[in-house]
Amino acid sequence: MGSRPNPGDLVRVVKGGLVLEGVVMPTTEFSDPNSLVIKLSNGYNVGVDVRDARIEVLKEKMYEVGKVPEAGETSVSGSGKMKMSFISTGGTIVSKVEYETGAVKPAITAEELIEMVPEYKDEFSSIEVLELYRILSEDFTPHEWGELARITYNKLRGGADAVVIAHGTDTMAFTAAALAFSLRRLPTPVMLVGAQRSSDRPSTDSVLNLKACPVIAREAPFGEVVVVMHGSTSDTYVLAHRGVKVRKMHSSRRDAFQSVNDVPLARVDFPSASFKLLNRRYLKRSSPSDLELRGKFSDRAALIKFYPSMDCGVIDHFLDKGFRGIVLEGTGLGHVRNQCISSLRRAVEEGVLVAMTTQTLFGRVNMKVYTTGRKLLEAGVIPASDMLPETAYVKMSWLLGNYGDLNLDELRKLFLQDVAHEINPRHELNLYPRWFHGE
Amino acid sequence: MGSRPNPGDLVRVVKGGLVLEGVVMPTTEFSDPNSLVIKLSNGYNVGVDVRDARIEVLKEKMYEVGKVPEAGETSVSGSGKMKMSFISTGGTIVSKVEYETGAVKPAITAEELIEMVPEYKDEFSSIEVLELYRILSEDFTPHEWGELARITYNKLRGGADAVVIAHGTDTMAFTAAALAFSLRRLPTPVMLVGAQRSSDRPSTDSVLNLKACPVIAREAPFGEVVVVMHGSTSDTYVLAHRGVKVRKMHSSRRDAFQSVNDVPLARVDFPSASFKLLNRRYLKRSSPSDLELRGKFSDRAALIKFYPSMDCGVIDHFLDKGFRGIVLEGTGLGHVRNQCISSLRRAVEEGVLVAMTTQTLFGRVNMKVYTTGRKLLEAGVIPASDMLPETAYVKMSWLLGNYGDLNLDELRKLFLQDVAHEINPRHELNLYPRWFHGE
Repeated sequence: MGSRPNPGDLVRVVKGGLVLEGVVMPTTEFSDPNSLVIKLSNGYNVGVDVRDARIEVLKEKMYEVGKVPEAGETSVSGSGKMKMSFISTGGTIVSKVEYETGAVKPAITAEELIEMVPEYKDEFSSIEVLELYRILSEDFTPHEWGELARITYNKLRGGADAVVIAHGTDTMAFTAAALAFSLRRLPTPVMLVGAQRSSDRPSTDSVLNLKACPVIAREAPFGEVVVVMHGSTSDTYVLAHRGVKVRKMHSSRRDAFQSVNDVPLARVDFPSASFKLLNRRYLKRSSPSDLELRGKFSDRAALIKFYPSMDCGVIDHFLDKGFRGIVLEGTGLGHVRNQCISSLRRAVEEGVLVAMTTQTLFGRVNMKVYTTGRKLLEAGVIPASDMLPETAYVKMSWLLGNYGDLNLDELRKLFLQDVAHEINPRHELNLYPRWFHGE
Repeated sequence: MGSRPNPGDLVRVVKGGLVLEGVVMPTTEFSDPNSLVIKLSNGYNVGVDVRDARIEVLKEKMYEVGKVPEAGETSVSGSGKMKMSFISTGGTIVSKVEYETGAVKPAITAEELIEMVPEYKDEFSSIEVLELYRILSEDFTPHEWGELARITYNKLRGGADAVVIAHGTDTMAFTAAALAFSLRRLPTPVMLVGAQRSSDRPSTDSVLNLKACPVIAREAPFGEVVVVMHGSTSDTYVLAHRGVKVRKMHSSRRDAFQSVNDVPLARVDFPSASFKLLNRRYLKRSSPSDLELRGKFSDRAALIKFYPSMDCGVIDHFLDKGFRGIVLEGTGLGHVRNQCISSLRRAVEEGVLVAMTTQTLFGRVNMKVYTTGRKLLEAGVIPASDMLPETAYVKMSWLLGNYGDLNLDELRKLFLQDVAHEINPRHELNLYPRWFHGE
């Protein structure tokens, strides 16, 4: 090769019989020095090993680098039928490398979204991009859940046919559950989408995840909050998981998100972009005028994972600080050590909502089988059925936010009531994944 | 049928063309009133729908009921070759229904063990049963881990060829990890075994799990602490999972235990009782004289699972109480909210060991990718690679118990050192289970 081109340059790469033209993407401290990432005109990024390639600069500084736009609203129009509202909260999917510093900044405009997914021009009549936050998903709080619920509600009231929310994957499942509890009787799916590989990388999963969104908006019979992420490690299909039943199950794989104790609602196969409903139990789409918002969240709920010899004082810590709800992530069918029962009894006596989930994640709590479970029930602990610990935590924050003036008995009843199919009354055998046992 | 026989009676049941003889097992509050459970002479329990069966009492009160023996040591001899030491700590596997009260009490003698698994007489020359505890596994603490490690060590030093530890399933994986760190250079596998269905029930998994133990003791090339539990929902095979890589993943299924980020060490197929090694990476058996005990545990370690808007004060709570180690179960590649970084910095400054694991369970932490991770590394948080949160917690308790006088830098080094293959440097694709996606 000749001299290495600069980020932003338009180049032609000749390698073997292959000729590629595109714009050089910036490198980061994690980039392979032998590799160059080029954004093609169709929006895709391709990685090229430059060691045996010939590279010709067609135009220097094709794009201006080093600028991250101000947050705000941008829009473009297209030739399709649906109105799409894209709300960015940050995360890998909308992150780009700042050309000068190498730092990654979450920022996106409507133009940039169209660059990533040119198909959007054909699917949508208009694409509004709202850059709501530029925060890391680990810094989300119930405050952001409430704000995001309200804004989503307004977009749907304003006639959006598809709402896509870009979100960091770390706490995406929590936010999905929060929106699922907040937005009642949805006219169309609300889709959270993220990426496990940054959009600047050739192996990015963001493009396929984004491509699945209009298909789901068009075809899905359900009006639910869903997480739209890869179903496999390759670009073969994308799943729509029910927001209250999904969990990030792997730190880095592209198919990290999986439904637990439920079947994914739907899949979109590629390259055909065909929609397939997988789960017949869903909340149907409602008329837009029936949409209801219950979007308040309390920050007085806590999640405590139990482990052998856990200091029960941690329960009292939360009580002393004025917390109003505690979700326990117990062992097996829903147990914690007997020593903690007195602190839990104190909690219930002080009017604090206490619920039990299981750290096995799969399966359901059943506190009637063993002595400890029965004692916990007597102390007033609520068995949270097959709810994920994370979902139970969000539900508690939501209940305390919207119905905090109800008494404990009424709150307990509401907690056990199924709101968004967070409780699955029937577990088929196929809900438990198949593990490698040497076959 | 005639009048319902009493528990303890020897009966003959005629149903269709089938004739069964055995002792009537007691009922509990959860028993089906139309069903009778009968223990056959071969040790198996069979459930019979009595509505169209003829039942004849052959001998009343064949067994005396209502007596739970005192804890202690009992033994029987057999015609086999290996010396077996069976240590009971409690749990469903050794629980029986108290005939008068219906309460379940964990208690077992050598005679009762032989009744459950008559094959043991052929496998072992002697079977010593030590009833060490009658506690529920959720009440285990580092104190019991240490005591159990010491007793196991003594049994092995005393020439046991097979050590089987009966344990409640709720915290079995924690105890398995504790023993794996404590017992260095094992001459034979140490097997933890439990049951998801009580041994009084016809669907019990305890018999098959127990049957696999002599096969593993005889055939396994590894000297590791393993969890020996069902690999499927039917009685087809049993798996030996590495103690530091196993987790209870379902609240009730018989195949609840699964290896995470590792392949099970071995499987035993039934009815052939054939042994198959599944994982070529293992600690070999050592000579009995090389066995070493490092069996102290500190109760000054804590596990904290992070969730959005977690009150960082919970970290300070543990610091104020004098805890010396904290394992975080963060999100994704190993993150917690930025607000908590100051408390974690305080922890490190006060000489407290802080390690990061991931709540995705699958995959590995990598704190160099995102800003938050890098800040946490700067604050002194140790990335725990692909260790399970539970294993990292046990390891920390073990390190603080045995090496608590070392300085923080030395402890950090030890924490990152692989002791019992709790760190798997290489993840094959098949380590992630296959989920149902509608195929």
